[in-house]
Amino acid sequence: MEASTALSRIGLAGLAVMGQNLALNIADKGFPISVYNRTTSKVDETIDRAHQEGNLPLLGQYNPRDFVLSIQRPRSVIILVKAGAPVDQTIAALSDHMEPGDAIIDGGNEWYENTERRIKEVNEKGILYLGMGVSGGEEGARNGPSLMPGGSHQAYLNVQDILHKVAAQVEDGPCVTYIGEGGSGNFVKMVHNGIEYGDMQLISEAYDVLKNVGGLSNSELAEIFAEWNRGELESFLVEITADIFKVKDDGGDGELVDKILDKTGMKGTGKWTVQQAAELSVAAPTIAASLDCRYLSGLKEERENAAKALKEAGLKEETGSVVMTGVDKKRLIDDVRQALYASKICSYAQGMNLLRAKSNEKGWNLNMGELARIWKGGCIIRAVFLDRIKQAYVRNPNLASLVVDPDFAREMVQRQAAWRRVVGLAISAGISTPGMCASLSYFDTYRRSRLPANLVQAQRDLFGAHTYERIDRPGAFHTEWTKLARKTDAGVGAFN
Amino acid sequence: MEASTALSRIGLAGLAVMGQNLALNIADKGFPISVYNRTTSKVDETIDRAHQEGNLPLLGQYNPRDFVLSIQRPRSVIILVKAGAPVDQTIAALSDHMEPGDAIIDGGNEWYENTERRIKEVNEKGILYLGMGVSGGEEGARNGPSLMPGGSHQAYLNVQDILHKVAAQVEDGPCVTYIGEGGSGNFVKMVHNGIEYGDMQLISEAYDVLKNVGGLSNSELAEIFAEWNRGELESFLVEITADIFKVKDDGGDGELVDKILDKTGMKGTGKWTVQQAAELSVAAPTIAASLDCRYLSGLKEERENAAKALKEAGLKEETGSVVMTGVDKKRLIDDVRQALYASKICSYAQGMNLLRAKSNEKGWNLNMGELARIWKGGCIIRAVFLDRIKQAYVRNPNLASLVVDPDFAREMVQRQAAWRRVVGLAISAGISTPGMCASLSYFDTYRRSRLPANLVQAQRDLFGAHTYERIDRPGAFHTEWTKLARKTDAGVGAFN
Repeated sequence: MEASTALSRIGLAGLAVMGQNLALNIADKGFPISVYNRTTSKVDETIDRAHQEGNLPLLGQYNPRDFVLSIQRPRSVIILVKAGAPVDQTIAALSDHMEPGDAIIDGGNEWYENTERRIKEVNEKGILYLGMGVSGGEEGARNGPSLMPGGSHQAYLNVQDILHKVAAQVEDGPCVTYIGEGGSGNFVKMVHNGIEYGDMQLISEAYDVLKNVGGLSNSELAEIFAEWNRGELESFLVEITADIFKVKDDGGDGELVDKILDKTGMKGTGKWTVQQAAELSVAAPTIAASLDCRYLSGLKEERENAAKALKEAGLKEETGSVVMTGVDKKRLIDDVRQALYASKICSYAQGMNLLRAKSNEKGWNLNMGELARIWKGGCIIRAVFLDRIKQAYVRNPNLASLVVDPDFAREMVQRQAAWRRVVGLAISAGISTPGMCASLSYFDTYRRSRLPANLVQAQRDLFGAHTYERIDRPGAFHTEWTKLARKTDAGVGAFN
Repeated sequence: MEASTALSRIGLAGLAVMGQNLALNIADKGFPISVYNRTTSKVDETIDRAHQEGNLPLLGQYNPRDFVLSIQRPRSVIILVKAGAPVDQTIAALSDHMEPGDAIIDGGNEWYENTERRIKEVNEKGILYLGMGVSGGEEGARNGPSLMPGGSHQAYLNVQDILHKVAAQVEDGPCVTYIGEGGSGNFVKMVHNGIEYGDMQLISEAYDVLKNVGGLSNSELAEIFAEWNRGELESFLVEITADIFKVKDDGGDGELVDKILDKTGMKGTGKWTVQQAAELSVAAPTIAASLDCRYLSGLKEERENAAKALKEAGLKEETGSVVMTGVDKKRLIDDVRQALYASKICSYAQGMNLLRAKSNEKGWNLNMGELARIWKGGCIIRAVFLDRIKQAYVRNPNLASLVVDPDFAREMVQRQAAWRRVVGLAISAGISTPGMCASLSYFDTYRRSRLPANLVQAQRDLFGAHTYERIDRPGAFHTEWTKLARKTDAGVGAFN
């Protein structure tokens, strides 16, 4: 261990796979790092990997004190443990040995308010704090994640050189930027995950329609997704989807994907995104639909019973779906591609507007274009498409919604006929496409100058005297609706 | 004031219109009542009304002490002030003069956790507490609301005779029942309001489709809704909708509804319902869609800009919508009726399942059939339909979802073709029906034994090693997807 005599540049505590990989990534970029884990076998495991992966400058430590003292001042310690109480416990164990000016960087998927609480708590000891979203999974952590650090700007400056090297690299820089104050880094990562939920849901719907309406085989699906990955949909999630359809079931016939149980797990970030959207009066129906589908997927037994109770739709009982005959496969594939793309734009528009609403509430001054830029590489939603989002916000930092950016608006208009065909076909086939439907409803609601909300206001005024506004003159008005309706009833020839 | 010498049976503090009306309702049923309001002119106003409306036994009081002491022990005091801090202030002002065994009954739309906090706080003084949902608006409060009291059972028993008389009466009893412990009364009222949001949204979509796809006039709409109110859709909201279309614009030509600004206001209960659904892993997309539409309706200026930017859909620019030619009006009307009914069932299924999930979490032991029963009269969502919901839960108290109750299941299946036609037509016309879409997606997702969630699980396993289950054997599995996909790529003739 060549780094054992000198002090390390940085420390990392919490050596599950994500932590190990991020530590090795940092060491790999030439920054000597100390690592620590409460279960010490993980420390040995990490040391072994550092050795095997090229004698990387990594120093294992077996207690919090030695760990902290092995790092040069001002110290920066990344922690990667389970969100919630384990973070508080780790902070308590480490901060005892830290000094004013040192910094703790939480890399977990933490609820942003917990980070804001901890910023205050450790500040009492003079310790700086960052809540840093880390996306890219295990592979990203090792080879270049997208990093979303928020909190103390000084703590960020102390490690900026490291983060710039460690993050994924795209043509316009490393996939990291100082997000803003407080819990902004965690919040941005939360919304990233919400968008990720949406992307995965939309892709699964595309799969469902192609398979169950179009009758495509897994090998055809692998080809289609690989082809899509060479066009406007080029992205990590579309790329891995192509791969997934290729994997054979070991020992079985056919592909593994067909043997996987259709129950989706989740962590808390999608739920928080939906709750925050409601809190901030932002419509995020595509993201909400993806969360709902994860919940409904979990009710496997209930769904099987419902499929029996409601089977009269002409669906195949075993799948609850139907392969339609007479569908033009080639056109369906092209339509689904367009529907997926248009639905995705709406989902991102929702996520970006949620970020802006929170930024306004908290005074974070988030740079929307820069957020899109740091998602271009490293993270799960990385995609060519994000550069176009960046450009849209560079053109107009105050863009009301991605869907009215001139470029995206043109694309939406071009794709809407295909999009309407796909959703319409799925509806008649009994194949649910909740995400695509939610995106289309969102689009059709948002671009409508006159909604039927006038009726809702009239109802509210009738039963609750909530008053209403008029389109032709200012003021708040109340009407005795029922009395006046009776007058009309009594009127001669009012309706004939 | 004939009641001024004897003690009152009950008190009511907070004399805005709801409070006045509920107090007069109580007095009208023969229960002498003391009333109090901080702004004393409201007390005089209420006294005047009690006099005018038949010398009702109502005693005005001008300070908290006299008010409390004018009520017979154990005292029951209803408070009807704005939710939040005003409730705490009113409790503080009154409880100083109350004694152990007395009870406070908050009739506002309060967040249930505030009620649970207050139950603990006043219990320290021996005071009992109820959080009581009151629905029916001003008219209901005066003539018979639906009441949802939760908290201290003893406090409920102390006023049960009053509540039974004051509540709306339906053929199987008064629209009140002891809901359960803690904040259950407020929670049930919150979900009632969420369902109300859904109903209003669905009705506004029916209106939108009939007007903008079918080209119906306001007089035709008035006739149609009145006709619907004689069938399976018979309900307060459908009834008042018929009335609304009849009201002429005073001094203008045409109907008032067309002059109302399409921006919808809201209080907090819809938002809370959506957030609680997410919290409890319950899909409630129809209710969420109605909340989103209220949010989007508020963005009037943005929508007008978007209508211009995205106008190429062939829509009329001024309305962002299109009247379709060649639509069979009569069939469309019948289809929309069926779509509205089926969508409504799904929305109620979501609300009831949210209530059950919360009941399980909190141990409230909510009686679902009884909740449906007390909503049959008095409240905004009152409807003939609720008796059918009650019957479904009487048949099977553990019903997984309303949509699998044999009666409702049959109705859903019968109506699904019309439902699919309406939503499909709206989608091709560019008229958003987010609530109907959400209900249909919910239905098609819930009654599907096999969802494409298998792909989502494969993706999660690929990038996050989250593991997956299989359909054919137990266990948690992890696969090296990318490696195996490359192997397939290298295989001879794997995909040709």
